[in-house]
Amino acid sequence: MITVLKSSATAEQRDQLIRWLEGQNVQVHISEGSEYTVLGLVGDTAHIDMELLESLDIVDSVKRVSEPFKKVNRKFHPDDSVIDAGGVLIGGGHFAVIAGPCSVETREQIIGVAHAVKASGAALLRGGAFKPRTSPYDFQGLHGEGLTLLLEAKKATGLPIVTELMDMQDFDLFEDVDVIQVGARNMQNFGMLKKLGRTDKTILLKRGLANSIKELLMSAEYIMAGGNENVILCERGIRTFETYTRNTLDISAVPVLHELTHLPVIIDPSHATGHASLVPSMALAAAACGADGLMIEVHNDPIHALCDGAQSLTPAQFDELMGQVRRILEVVRS
Amino acid sequence: MITVLKSSATAEQRDQLIRWLEGQNVQVHISEGSEYTVLGLVGDTAHIDMELLESLDIVDSVKRVSEPFKKVNRKFHPDDSVIDAGGVLIGGGHFAVIAGPCSVETREQIIGVAHAVKASGAALLRGGAFKPRTSPYDFQGLHGEGLTLLLEAKKATGLPIVTELMDMQDFDLFEDVDVIQVGARNMQNFGMLKKLGRTDKTILLKRGLANSIKELLMSAEYIMAGGNENVILCERGIRTFETYTRNTLDISAVPVLHELTHLPVIIDPSHATGHASLVPSMALAAAACGADGLMIEVHNDPIHALCDGAQSLTPAQFDELMGQVRRILEVVRS
Amino acid sequence: MITVLKSSATAEQRDQLIRWLEGQNVQVHISEGSEYTVLGLVGDTAHIDMELLESLDIVDSVKRVSEPFKKVNRKFHPDDSVIDAGGVLIGGGHFAVIAGPCSVETREQIIGVAHAVKASGAALLRGGAFKPRTSPYDFQGLHGEGLTLLLEAKKATGLPIVTELMDMQDFDLFEDVDVIQVGARNMQNFGMLKKLGRTDKTILLKRGLANSIKELLMSAEYIMAGGNENVILCERGIRTFETYTRNTLDISAVPVLHELTHLPVIIDPSHATGHASLVPSMALAAAACGADGLMIEVHNDPIHALCDGAQSLTPAQFDELMGQVRRILEVVRS
Amino acid sequence: MITVLKSSATAEQRDQLIRWLEGQNVQVHISEGSEYTVLGLVGDTAHIDMELLESLDIVDSVKRVSEPFKKVNRKFHPDDSVIDAGGVLIGGGHFAVIAGPCSVETREQIIGVAHAVKASGAALLRGGAFKPRTSPYDFQGLHGEGLTLLLEAKKATGLPIVTELMDMQDFDLFEDVDVIQVGARNMQNFGMLKKLGRTDKTILLKRGLANSIKELLMSAEYIMAGGNENVILCERGIRTFETYTRNTLDISAVPVLHELTHLPVIIDPSHATGHASLVPSMALAAAACGADGLMIEVHNDPIHALCDGAQSLTPAQFDELMGQVRRILEVVRS
Repeated sequence: MITVLKSSATAEQRDQLIRWLEGQNVQVHISEGSEYTVLGLVGDTAHIDMELLESLDIVDSVKRVSEPFKKVNRKFHPDDSVIDAGGVLIGGGHFAVIAGPCSVETREQIIGVAHAVKASGAALLRGGAFKPRTSPYDFQGLHGEGLTLLLEAKKATGLPIVTELMDMQDFDLFEDVDVIQVGARNMQNFGMLKKLGRTDKTILLKRGLANSIKELLMSAEYIMAGGNENVILCERGIRTFETYTRNTLDISAVPVLHELTHLPVIIDPSHATGHASLVPSMALAAAACGADGLMIEVHNDPIHALCDGAQSLTPAQFDELMGQVRRILEVVRS
Repeated sequence: MITVLKSSATAEQRDQLIRWLEGQNVQVHISEGSEYTVLGLVGDTAHIDMELLESLDIVDSVKRVSEPFKKVNRKFHPDDSVIDAGGVLIGGGHFAVIAGPCSVETREQIIGVAHAVKASGAALLRGGAFKPRTSPYDFQGLHGEGLTLLLEAKKATGLPIVTELMDMQDFDLFEDVDVIQVGARNMQNFGMLKKLGRTDKTILLKRGLANSIKELLMSAEYIMAGGNENVILCERGIRTFETYTRNTLDISAVPVLHELTHLPVIIDPSHATGHASLVPSMALAAAACGADGLMIEVHNDPIHALCDGAQSLTPAQFDELMGQVRRILEVVRS
Repeated sequence: MITVLKSSATAEQRDQLIRWLEGQNVQVHISEGSEYTVLGLVGDTAHIDMELLESLDIVDSVKRVSEPFKKVNRKFHPDDSVIDAGGVLIGGGHFAVIAGPCSVETREQIIGVAHAVKASGAALLRGGAFKPRTSPYDFQGLHGEGLTLLLEAKKATGLPIVTELMDMQDFDLFEDVDVIQVGARNMQNFGMLKKLGRTDKTILLKRGLANSIKELLMSAEYIMAGGNENVILCERGIRTFETYTRNTLDISAVPVLHELTHLPVIIDPSHATGHASLVPSMALAAAACGADGLMIEVHNDPIHALCDGAQSLTPAQFDELMGQVRRILEVVRS
Repeated sequence: MITVLKSSATAEQRDQLIRWLEGQNVQVHISEGSEYTVLGLVGDTAHIDMELLESLDIVDSVKRVSEPFKKVNRKFHPDDSVIDAGGVLIGGGHFAVIAGPCSVETREQIIGVAHAVKASGAALLRGGAFKPRTSPYDFQGLHGEGLTLLLEAKKATGLPIVTELMDMQDFDLFEDVDVIQVGARNMQNFGMLKKLGRTDKTILLKRGLANSIKELLMSAEYIMAGGNENVILCERGIRTFETYTRNTLDISAVPVLHELTHLPVIIDPSHATGHASLVPSMALAAAACGADGLMIEVHNDPIHALCDGAQSLTPAQFDELMGQVRRILEVVRS
């Protein structure tokens, strides 16, 4: 950790700060320039509160040289992690597509979609049973009944299932769920992350709407620090000033995350854009830039089929897209 | 609710959509123009999924005419709500200052700060016992011991206390806490909001870093829909491209919220700016524009006192600020 | 144009507004609901000031049904425009790569890079002679001398050239330039856009850092309204809260723009990300999602070559990337 | 300037970089740690391209210790600058209110508003003759005729005038204008800034929608570097994800700018919020937090007066606000 002191700092203030730092068991190397003094902190600086240090009046700036994340860090784990998601591998050259409806609605719906997406090449089935909704008056999902229907669809098709856990009180219901999704709004629900870190469930961690790439990695670190190394990261759009799309897909997060971490990274173009017409091209972009998988909404409801324009693809649209994705992957991998 | 259809919609598609809407028990008034058709939906439209409708290919746009929030809405409750916070009133002309350290550290610290801020005119004491931290390796607060120390400080000074609840599993520990803070990261933890809505605790609801004013109101609606009407809103800075300040204080949220809701609105200039030197001017701005209170970090630690520049004010700085705030309030109220 | 009135509007206020609107030669269709009144405005509403209308106290909201852009609108020009850029075609299935250094530095440099990128398949040469710099003390480009060197490189290689015009006073120097770039900071320099609209130069219009997709289209409309239809749009990253990358590449702008306009859309992954290591994957993503071209920084300076990490690719990296881009294009086009 | 090298840098690469730096006439101090090497660059580092350095593969990060702005820097000019705006002083304890309509429309309008705002205590008159509009089809102002009317209003009332220059080609028309406004879209029109820097006109420089505080200061530096020291800064809202207000007023820019620069800072609450109902409270906030002035839209058009809700205040609303502002200023100054 490097701390740059302001030129206005007196010798006494500087010495007082150094004594305080040394009292926290870090060594301090002083390098004085004409305009500034640089303190190099050596030792276990992980417990030094960077924000506190930065807020001091005599401190110009503080910089961590070593990144604050360890378990997720590619430096200490150069090879890609390959995560087992209910028998399906993701990462390290294994590309997997998760598909299904936003919400589980009926047995007929979820089993119908499951068969369709499997036939097109999806490896996992998604479907929401617990739905985070901005309004308390909106449909909140079928809860336990939705999980039961998902498990039926799993049995009928053999597809492992991915579904969102919103509250740890419901955790026991998720025993047979293959991949637990932590939604964007819970990315910094640290209590939930710690508890999931003490399980052996595979976790799909979605990036928060306003969270930086480094914060996403620190949240993955919460899970891994507890001992659970089965983490898949998901970019699903960030909140910007642009209102034409629901969110702005930060596609560059794919190569950035691949540089910083060994964990697999998937893209959710459905939530990122909010428009079915934009999903296929964004899915192809994700495949081309090295993403390890996709999460795509597919729905067979007539109102959707009729209108051909929801955030969800129809099974036919999904099938066409899967053919294109496979051909992009052939290029990328060769 | 108003739905504008695209000119490309065929009569058949339009009729199919209208039948679907009528099947959900809303009446549809058709108004045809040369370039567009407007459907006016009348009846209980609260259960119509606006996002689904908007995503249909034949739909140009959808607009709710009546706002989706009810209990928090000033339309149905024109007078300001006055919230009781451990005996202190906030809102409707009652201005209250909450002050104290970011984290509870020691008995001496919290009781010392409590006496100091009370002497300067603070009405409530704040202090974190459970601390949300980006990194799992950072100090996470003293937890139960911190709450015990806070309660001692309450006993010593008579100041009601405000502290953050991060996880409902800890709720029982908060029995004697006067105001429970829901932090920015939990603003859309809907499970927590619902549960707090079934208690009678006074809730301080902080706006999320990337949440709109309307989303803040919908989260307050979650609490009030459960029956708990004791909600105080807090603006504490939003995330923007500007990096000089930790966040960007959205001061206009004060008059906007006062237009939309009857609930009191307070400002946290410490977290909004991240620099003690900016806190006093932002506190005065908040008082001048009609905020119902302030939440300010005050700390008496020597490293802070020495350096005079942390996010926290020293007790002396806080005392000076309180004098200025009182004089601004005299002007605003007269 | 649709105007929704608030339920609080009195009949007198409503009638006054309608008379005012009719005085501006639009017909007003009234549709009254129980909670709201909708005014449908028919006729030439382009001159109605939407913002003024929206700001009126009795108006809830205003919505343009017909988009405010005409010449750039795909509705009135369903086929892709194919733009001639110094003999190279862009758009409508013609994919072109523009490559070269950020700044023109020396004859040797620009001619060397030009030969290299041509050999790898670039169709146009870029290089800055006038450089917009945040600081007045930073290198501002070689100006006229830079243009002279660019033209020498054009002569030596046959590659048409693309370079930025920062100020219309320099326009005469650009006589032999094939494509004039309007930089992100000038996207809403309306005087410049109008003047370029009266020329027959091909214009590469870059999206501003904080400009919406619709604002980009309106700026293109300024150029086309003047009679110049040779416009290429360029997405080069927008400003968000994420600081790991220089900007955030809004890759979804490609399919969105293709829906809204017939003009070609290219991607500049170098400025969007600011890191050479991220450029290849973003270029492949752009090719996969349907972009009509790329603009990529390539540099052969030893300090870059040594360090292998500037925003610019080395000629060798660029050559490898071009091979991958071609193979992605084969998939996309088949 | 401090440059942190990555631990992966070889000795050879490091030496090559140091030789390159020394070749540019800066001295390099090496400070080696176990995990990193810090290079301290001493001398005239202003011409070192920080972005180039940062982009090198062996470089972890680069930090300027001395700020890149000089003439605007409070460090080198500790006292507040007091700017003469047509005889009215702004800054250093002198608070001035600029008021008037968004656009100059008619003689009657501008002279009527001028008399009204003068009576209420405004010190300068504003009014747009050249209007930047997103659409080429929107009203673009009365141009020369508008300037003539403004000058008539100046003659009639004695109020100095403030109006926007959009294009240097119109500069000669601005001879009798007291304060030239550089609009948000031109904040980084570096050619215009340089030319205005060679005049002796007082410049009101508005912050761009997506420009950081430091970029605003660098743009002021462009003007001052040319020799023109008469610069007033104006915060008028930045672009964020929040859509309820037109922009988000960054009120903390006032104390931040006062720390960094000696130039006066004024606030434009009308453009920042876009709603007349929010203007008074934001104006009071600005006065309370130390702004040196305000710029407020006032209009007397019947459609506004009728509806009482445009972005512009009516003369009566403005008059009431001015009384409150004066009382806040009494508190702030005492």
